[in-house]
Amino acid sequence: MVEVSEAIKLGARTYLDRQFLAVAVFGAALTVVLGYVLGVFAALTFAAGAVLSGLSSYIGVIVAINANIRTAAAAQRDVNEALMTATRSGTVVGMSLAGLGLLGVSSLYLIFGDPIYLLGLGFGASLICLFARVGGGIYTKGADIGADLVGKVEVGIPEDDPRNPAVIADQVGDNVGDIAGTGSDVFQSYVMALVAAMILGVSTLGPEGLAYPMAVAAAGIVSSLVASFFVRSRNSNAQRAIYGGMYVAVVLDIAIAAVSCYLLFGDLNQFYATLVGIVAVVLLAWITFYYTSANWGPVREIATVSRTGPATNVIFGLARGFESTVLPVVVSGLCVFLSFLFSGLYGIAMLAVGFLSVAATLTAMSAYGPIVDNAKGIIEFARVKGEAAKAMDTLDAVGNSTKAVCKVYAIQTSAFAQVAMFSAFVTATGLRVIDVTRPPVTTGLIIGGMLSFLITSQILRAVGKSAYRMIEEVRRQFAQIPGLKEGKAKPDYKKCVDISTRGALRGMFLPAALTIVIPLIVGYTLGVEAVGGLLAGNLVTTLPLALMMVQSGASWDNAKKYIEAGNFGGVGTPTHAAAVVGDMVGDPFKDAAGASLDVLMNLIGVVSTLFASSFIAYALFA
Amino acid sequence: MVEVSEAIKLGARTYLDRQFLAVAVFGAALTVVLGYVLGVFAALTFAAGAVLSGLSSYIGVIVAINANIRTAAAAQRDVNEALMTATRSGTVVGMSLAGLGLLGVSSLYLIFGDPIYLLGLGFGASLICLFARVGGGIYTKGADIGADLVGKVEVGIPEDDPRNPAVIADQVGDNVGDIAGTGSDVFQSYVMALVAAMILGVSTLGPEGLAYPMAVAAAGIVSSLVASFFVRSRNSNAQRAIYGGMYVAVVLDIAIAAVSCYLLFGDLNQFYATLVGIVAVVLLAWITFYYTSANWGPVREIATVSRTGPATNVIFGLARGFESTVLPVVVSGLCVFLSFLFSGLYGIAMLAVGFLSVAATLTAMSAYGPIVDNAKGIIEFARVKGEAAKAMDTLDAVGNSTKAVCKVYAIQTSAFAQVAMFSAFVTATGLRVIDVTRPPVTTGLIIGGMLSFLITSQILRAVGKSAYRMIEEVRRQFAQIPGLKEGKAKPDYKKCVDISTRGALRGMFLPAALTIVIPLIVGYTLGVEAVGGLLAGNLVTTLPLALMMVQSGASWDNAKKYIEAGNFGGVGTPTHAAAVVGDMVGDPFKDAAGASLDVLMNLIGVVSTLFASSFIAYALFA
Repeated sequence: MVEVSEAIKLGARTYLDRQFLAVAVFGAALTVVLGYVLGVFAALTFAAGAVLSGLSSYIGVIVAINANIRTAAAAQRDVNEALMTATRSGTVVGMSLAGLGLLGVSSLYLIFGDPIYLLGLGFGASLICLFARVGGGIYTKGADIGADLVGKVEVGIPEDDPRNPAVIADQVGDNVGDIAGTGSDVFQSYVMALVAAMILGVSTLGPEGLAYPMAVAAAGIVSSLVASFFVRSRNSNAQRAIYGGMYVAVVLDIAIAAVSCYLLFGDLNQFYATLVGIVAVVLLAWITFYYTSANWGPVREIATVSRTGPATNVIFGLARGFESTVLPVVVSGLCVFLSFLFSGLYGIAMLAVGFLSVAATLTAMSAYGPIVDNAKGIIEFARVKGEAAKAMDTLDAVGNSTKAVCKVYAIQTSAFAQVAMFSAFVTATGLRVIDVTRPPVTTGLIIGGMLSFLITSQILRAVGKSAYRMIEEVRRQFAQIPGLKEGKAKPDYKKCVDISTRGALRGMFLPAALTIVIPLIVGYTLGVEAVGGLLAGNLVTTLPLALMMVQSGASWDNAKKYIEAGNFGGVGTPTHAAAVVGDMVGDPFKDAAGASLDVLMNLIGVVSTLFASSFIAYALFA
Repeated sequence: MVEVSEAIKLGARTYLDRQFLAVAVFGAALTVVLGYVLGVFAALTFAAGAVLSGLSSYIGVIVAINANIRTAAAAQRDVNEALMTATRSGTVVGMSLAGLGLLGVSSLYLIFGDPIYLLGLGFGASLICLFARVGGGIYTKGADIGADLVGKVEVGIPEDDPRNPAVIADQVGDNVGDIAGTGSDVFQSYVMALVAAMILGVSTLGPEGLAYPMAVAAAGIVSSLVASFFVRSRNSNAQRAIYGGMYVAVVLDIAIAAVSCYLLFGDLNQFYATLVGIVAVVLLAWITFYYTSANWGPVREIATVSRTGPATNVIFGLARGFESTVLPVVVSGLCVFLSFLFSGLYGIAMLAVGFLSVAATLTAMSAYGPIVDNAKGIIEFARVKGEAAKAMDTLDAVGNSTKAVCKVYAIQTSAFAQVAMFSAFVTATGLRVIDVTRPPVTTGLIIGGMLSFLITSQILRAVGKSAYRMIEEVRRQFAQIPGLKEGKAKPDYKKCVDISTRGALRGMFLPAALTIVIPLIVGYTLGVEAVGGLLAGNLVTTLPLALMMVQSGASWDNAKKYIEAGNFGGVGTPTHAAAVVGDMVGDPFKDAAGASLDVLMNLIGVVSTLFASSFIAYALFA
């Protein structure tokens, strides 16, 4: 077990070091450019945002990797102990993220004295996150598809089997993709929502309007910490234990937010908007759960139609994925409208802050997923049998559902942060309206909508290419290394780790560059109002497209697991093979493209806001 | 051959009769409701639009079905003769469509005297079209997938083999889906663009502004007729012959439009906007051709990665589908901006009219596809060998590319018509701005964006269900009818036709109802400005989503055909089986969901414009 764990640690550190080096060069260059174009304050906060985001990712990955083996060891003693180890480690990840976020925002505000300077912080954080999401997604899914296709389908060995050459790359990918990715995703929208709320708050309500978002954010951290002590498994029902913890955090968070609001403003108007945000977290978790858990109709339907082959499996998965966007979008739309009714534009920003206040709790739940997944992998890898393996299966099934819930949460946080940032953009530009009946705005609108399609295509192809190379390499190793299939020879894990790393580094720059360059082109040609259209259009496609990909990916995954649990004939049937195809199609959906789009949206938002006054001064047609 | 042809005719007539009956009941009820709510003029024009659209579909299908067998017969004599028969019949379909459209618009204008009353005409036309698209799409693709999966993959018999029980349903589907569907799609945006241009023209430029769109539309009909005499195949190069005809029509159209503009206005300002539209047709045809033809990189890449199985095939197909939206959206955005620069809002309407003026030519090219496809089917069915079969293969390959080009054309026409209709909506409501910074508009925006995801999910599932039932039925027939596989017994074609018909009728009402009801809900609660947001949001997602589905579907289809032509080992290899999976996933994309979304968008636009003043009077929050 120690041997596997060390291999995973080494792989993850190597990848992160190489990624950070590449990103550092890119980031340093951008800092210099920003310093010239937008001034030294913007450059400094940008660098701070990038460093803080990188730091929180790094801490998350290190904590998670160390938690893997401890969870695996605990599982050999007792399932409850394994659950506690995994959730406590998850809480550390969540707390460090929210803590660094709040610390960064509050201390930079104390230094610069005006929240408008903190926009750079959001820029730095989302740029780092885009690299983590895109790079991590390509890394993990190339490896995952390669491992599954040749291992499971062609050679017929189980998942996470040590004979599979791509298995270490796959395990490393879980950590860099799920922990560093989801963490930095939530981190950047956390920073973005706080900054937007502070900008709007200070301009409409004065110092109280600035203090309230920080109070709500702090409330979230406190309640997450308290709630983590309530996660305790009775009768080994891990699902109830984890979601129970979430409810405790939500209730406590609501109470503290209400009290702070009353103390600051003397009434509860601003609190109602916050409340809408916190309640939305629970509603959206239920919706995601319905669409992605094998307890309900949609996933079972996908499993059923796998009996007529991969085509019907893929068609139904896509259909349910498209459908799963409807309720979240309606809920989001109503939240925006309600919070505006309660307290105007500031209410929308407080909706976002309220939604994000439970970030520590949700990130902890999210980190739990890859921790137990890896612990399970380590146990299977070390061929430990019996109770421990069974215990890990139970915990892992819950982890799959929390991962999907938290990915949807990350998308929604970005969407709300973007709506809040949109108001900040309007404030920063001094535009009174962004009128979609004006053709330059219409043009900006449809180009903004197209952007998420463009980035999706780039990421899907990068994952596809990496997977294609991985499949060829794994096939080659099984063909050329004698005794590999019988377990007598060791595969060349390193080669597979290399393929993933190279694919990730190669694939992650183009999406980031496009995201920065396209708003600039639109802004300097069609003008600032067209950029407003671009932001609105991008929100309109990113939200449903990201939700579709993340939820359909999770439902394919769980449909496959449902069949593997023995339904419709179980493993080895054509039905199972069909479900594996859907799962592989869903891999780049849920962990690469779907998970990156929301960050891209925030990045476009913050770049546009930072450059807004420059667009006004230099645009060609406006 | 006569026997097959009669079976197809009977199946198509039965389906169309049942569909028209169901739609007539729904339409009659709606006419009465409209008469009460919006007055008798709206009800009358609505009924006229529905009848004209139905008539043009019916004529199209009858012409095409009769052309099938004549083309098949001609192919036994000479490939050029087959090409001429197919294109001339296609021209009849295109001319009847454009002729009825222009006739309807001009005669109703003469009766009512104000183009605002013609909105009902657009409503009727798009409602009928939505039924034709959704119903026809479900019909044809359920049958197609069922026929392919069991026939090709499981039993191992060729496409269009008479032993396949689903083959007649598949052939019927080609006619009702491709001919009635694409025809009525273009018809409704044709009417919509003309009406929008007339509304804007009469309010900004007086009678000349009203006459010019009709002159451009008439120019298109004349040039299409003249161009059809230029379609002549030298050296059997059908592709060059057909596209050559298109270029002749385009050049002639431009010339007549320029002359009419100069005669009416004394300058060419309005003509430039029209010119942008006509040039865009050619640009977009090239882009689609690049992404969907096996002559170029994208389709070949999809074929190549089929070597690592269906998952990589599906992932790359989706990736290229997403990518294929980028250039068309950028071109559309630039067209809107340029035509606005040339002549304001009226310029945008004239962009749409210019784009639509070549409708007769493009519809003719589109109808050519299913005509030769069916003729090829009849020849294979009747087991005619030799030259005729080879000739049909050549002609059919071209048909596949023209079909994709015309589907993209239909989507783009709807998008331009919608932008024009949006201006008409603004005129009708008297709103001076639709401001996306106002939260009710933001809410309308994201709900409008979500709508296309909702409808896509409904249609994909309906096709999936129909295909699932079809697969089970075809499997049952092969298992239970002794001697079927050996060709000694006849399959029960009628049962399969029934499954398709029932699936289509069952699946087509919900999308239509949602499309009508949701704008009404938003309008009567959040108010008319939110409906403006809804329209804009819907345009933003519909355009790229529809393009993605139609183009990825066509590229999967052609990647499969590329492999069938002998590349990567050809038919019978795992590579080919993987490509068949992609093709089946693409079926509901390109012919059902992707082809319906644009109609849905126009329907939302016209419903919103018709009810605009009612929203202003009765909305809850505005």
